[in-house]
Amino acid sequence: MALKVYVDRISQPSRAVLIFCKVNGIAFEEVTVTLSKRQQLTPEFKEINPMGKVPAIVDGRFKLFESHAILIYLSCAFPGVADHWYPADLSRRAKIHSVLDWHHSNLRRGSALLVFNTVLAPLFGRTPDPQVASEAEMLLSKSLSKIESVWLKGNGKFLLGGFKPSIADLSLVCEITQLQLLDEKDRNRILGPHLKVREWIENTRNATNPQFDEVHRPLYKLKTDLIKQGVEKFTSKM
Amino acid sequence: MALKVYVDRISQPSRAVLIFCKVNGIAFEEVTVTLSKRQQLTPEFKEINPMGKVPAIVDGRFKLFESHAILIYLSCAFPGVADHWYPADLSRRAKIHSVLDWHHSNLRRGSALLVFNTVLAPLFGRTPDPQVASEAEMLLSKSLSKIESVWLKGNGKFLLGGFKPSIADLSLVCEITQLQLLDEKDRNRILGPHLKVREWIENTRNATNPQFDEVHRPLYKLKTDLIKQGVEKFTSKM
Repeated sequence: MALKVYVDRISQPSRAVLIFCKVNGIAFEEVTVTLSKRQQLTPEFKEINPMGKVPAIVDGRFKLFESHAILIYLSCAFPGVADHWYPADLSRRAKIHSVLDWHHSNLRRGSALLVFNTVLAPLFGRTPDPQVASEAEMLLSKSLSKIESVWLKGNGKFLLGGFKPSIADLSLVCEITQLQLLDEKDRNRILGPHLKVREWIENTRNATNPQFDEVHRPLYKLKTDLIKQGVEKFTSKM
Repeated sequence: MALKVYVDRISQPSRAVLIFCKVNGIAFEEVTVTLSKRQQLTPEFKEINPMGKVPAIVDGRFKLFESHAILIYLSCAFPGVADHWYPADLSRRAKIHSVLDWHHSNLRRGSALLVFNTVLAPLFGRTPDPQVASEAEMLLSKSLSKIESVWLKGNGKFLLGGFKPSIADLSLVCEITQLQLLDEKDRNRILGPHLKVREWIENTRNATNPQFDEVHRPLYKLKTDLIKQGVEKFTSKM
């Protein structure tokens, strides 16, 4: 029975897991759980992930949720995955865990709250909160500065001085690509000051293309739809 | 050169790392970084952890921060650590990662924000925000329900049906013990409905005593000091 991967490509961690599987030639079946239709809250899906979140996987009888746990599991369970994604070396692996743990309360929180409280809230029948958006942008900008000064300070193309991407690069970059949904001037204000971050995003994208762009296509399409629908007006109120 | 562990015992993840080292007979030097004196923000400490947070470790030339990354590193780097803390089995290890990842945006966030916005803020010269405290309590209660219904649903004494504790038990329980700082009626309101959670806390405490209580002593003392100083009045406003 093939690996099943439950995702919505609008979800950042879903994209990271999908790109990882595709780039590493892991055979899997993609099962779409549409968040805007609240399919993650159905009793059927809660049998897969009782927390009602994507992504989740089912590998035989084994069920797992939380994208970082999934990326680590796949790196170890599928022998074809190259070492650079999740190095066997204890120290390098520990540093990757450190980045991934930090991510939750910093980059992830800043980015997700900002995008939700500007462009996404209306799609889910909610009202964006400009105060939350403003605080989220501060946390996001601070997080980007930290990434640049701490993990991109060397000459490597990837986090932690790496010359090939790890699961940490993939997770964090897929978070930042969510900013595609923002108005261009807002995105430029946030990413503009961080040249190394922008180069690293491109490095990660290039290292995982064409799968990276293919998986991101629904996000790019949503962006176009949002512009058409004029939902973008919310971002101008920030 | 012995392992150095940089902590403040008032910090939940610091306590988890300390208890882990002591229970597993890992030789280390405890270096106190006093958060109320903002010692985590000194240039000297930022050489250890540029994020300015505790805990952090230095093992020879190797520096690491983020408590979960530290617990995993120590489990693997010190051969005396029993397998149940961080099982070599791929599936069991993946489930522990899943709990630890979930923790950041759920139990951790709910508990830390609640305790800060009731009793701790004044110690740091800040004003507690009752609205944040109220939302944090909701997230905390929801998180406790999830722990009970998802990871404590079997007959095991610990998370994921375990009969011995893992690093996930230690991390999550040290988060919950922070609630000791709350007023008793508030703590009872939050923990009262969760019998399995309360039993699991006691199981984890018993499995790691006398080190558990010894490491928690400054927290218990802070609680006594708070009562003396009348800071507890903030909790009654909730």
